[in-house]
Amino acid sequence: MYVGVDVGGTKVLAVEISATGEVLRIARDSTPGRGDPASELEDALTRAVEAVAAGRALTGVGVSAAALVEPTGQTVRFATHLPWREEPVRERLASRWGAPVVLDNDAHCAAEAELAFGAGRGTSSFLLVNIGTGIGGGLVLDGRVWRGVGGMSGEFGHMQLVPDGLPCECGLSGCWEQYCSGRALERVFRATLGSHLDGPEVAARARAGDDAARQAFATIGHWLGVGLANLVAAFDPALVVIGGGVSEVGGLLLDPARETLGRQLVAAAHRTVPPVVPAALGPEAGAIGAALLVQRQHADPSLS
Amino acid sequence: MYVGVDVGGTKVLAVEISATGEVLRIARDSTPGRGDPASELEDALTRAVEAVAAGRALTGVGVSAAALVEPTGQTVRFATHLPWREEPVRERLASRWGAPVVLDNDAHCAAEAELAFGAGRGTSSFLLVNIGTGIGGGLVLDGRVWRGVGGMSGEFGHMQLVPDGLPCECGLSGCWEQYCSGRALERVFRATLGSHLDGPEVAARARAGDDAARQAFATIGHWLGVGLANLVAAFDPALVVIGGGVSEVGGLLLDPARETLGRQLVAAAHRTVPPVVPAALGPEAGAIGAALLVQRQHADPSLS
Repeated sequence: MYVGVDVGGTKVLAVEISATGEVLRIARDSTPGRGDPASELEDALTRAVEAVAAGRALTGVGVSAAALVEPTGQTVRFATHLPWREEPVRERLASRWGAPVVLDNDAHCAAEAELAFGAGRGTSSFLLVNIGTGIGGGLVLDGRVWRGVGGMSGEFGHMQLVPDGLPCECGLSGCWEQYCSGRALERVFRATLGSHLDGPEVAARARAGDDAARQAFATIGHWLGVGLANLVAAFDPALVVIGGGVSEVGGLLLDPARETLGRQLVAAAHRTVPPVVPAALGPEAGAIGAALLVQRQHADPSLS
Repeated sequence: MYVGVDVGGTKVLAVEISATGEVLRIARDSTPGRGDPASELEDALTRAVEAVAAGRALTGVGVSAAALVEPTGQTVRFATHLPWREEPVRERLASRWGAPVVLDNDAHCAAEAELAFGAGRGTSSFLLVNIGTGIGGGLVLDGRVWRGVGGMSGEFGHMQLVPDGLPCECGLSGCWEQYCSGRALERVFRATLGSHLDGPEVAARARAGDDAARQAFATIGHWLGVGLANLVAAFDPALVVIGGGVSEVGGLLLDPARETLGRQLVAAAHRTVPPVVPAALGPEAGAIGAALLVQRQHADPSLS
């Protein structure tokens, strides 16, 4: 039984997957506030995992966390939206659950999942850009997720696109995710119409043909293309995979991004501009990737 | 005898190296104009290689080119400053010289050299940023140079740092190399004093303590840090190595870059900010790296 659980800023999502990546069971819980004690978060995780296990003994659990996980996968160093700070999360959950636990960053887990079972299957080198509240990312090179020497690769959302630009929650300014994210979508829409709608509402209006909502997606889609042009110039991947809630609107976001990428990528006339495709695994990608890490460790215990 | 030859926009530089990377012989020639026929460029290359060989039979030559080299190393697709356009350079030079030839991009060659013998020795993951007329770069991940799926990785100089910014020779605008390069240095200095000096002259004045020249290096050094913060956020390397002629001024460029990197890198308080160090091999790095590729192929012919 391969179980993975994804811990995001608003929800906890657990899955059981088959050896070929099919989701067999799924359970959700809400994430306690970041001011609540870590024990409440771990209770929510445990409830989701036990709901998926449904009385069977746990053989191993992968944990995908919206957090900075140090590279050996023992400790969460820091998380903007979670109460963990320099905490030995892997060992604590393994003791609590009486089963092996693998811990990794959520974007890296999602990249593992898209590589094995999703939009990156059969492509050894691609970029994953996840657009939700902010932007997270993963780099897949020669068939492996590149985690970075400190486990911090893929912080694409905090690449600066605009000098002295919009202030970011991270303390910097002009970060990519201030121009392309759920929050950016809401801000652009509000600036046009003066009324506040949340991201899913703007998406619903855009799908229904509303001009202002479509224009808001075109604006953040343009900024998506600007950032992609920079990443493709640096990394030269075969493919770009776009995931996260904001991307579910499809072409209304991806078409302007493709247009800007084709126009703003260096030497576009002398190269193959990589295709920009939607992620395949949806909001379960992180949990699926975490379960996959458990599967892999089970097959080769030297990975633990 | 391991010979490498670097073909840049202004000069051709050939070296013979020992098995441990020492430069045993060196020869230079000037690069013909890009309007001249490719045969003149190949004549200049041949003269430099023969000067190093000094009558000995060639056993193999590595060619490091300031060009887009397709990933199998057969063809130069395009080069801004050289007359090669979709030309089968490897085969043509191998026939002419009667010896095996390995062809690669100059920044990738320099990264190979700095990894094996230079500032990246013993570090399996680092960024190389070469600052000359423009910016070239290399990514070393897990002990290997990541060339990209089309051989085009490391085009750092054409990442956009300023929306609608300064026009670039590449046809885009706001490219990093418009703010940090030899040309940027000259422009910043001219904007301050109204007088034109070339890069080496500005460097000489800065070393002698001239305020305006030092300020010009501080300005481009700041922009160096801005671009590095973006690259480190994406890749999370252990080290950043700065090469190229403009970097020879040392701390006058690197100190402001370090300062900006430390201030503008996401989550700097929760990570180790990578050291920014000068490259070790100077202007010979590309030629040394090309010779190394020949060495490596000689040791393992399956690489050819």
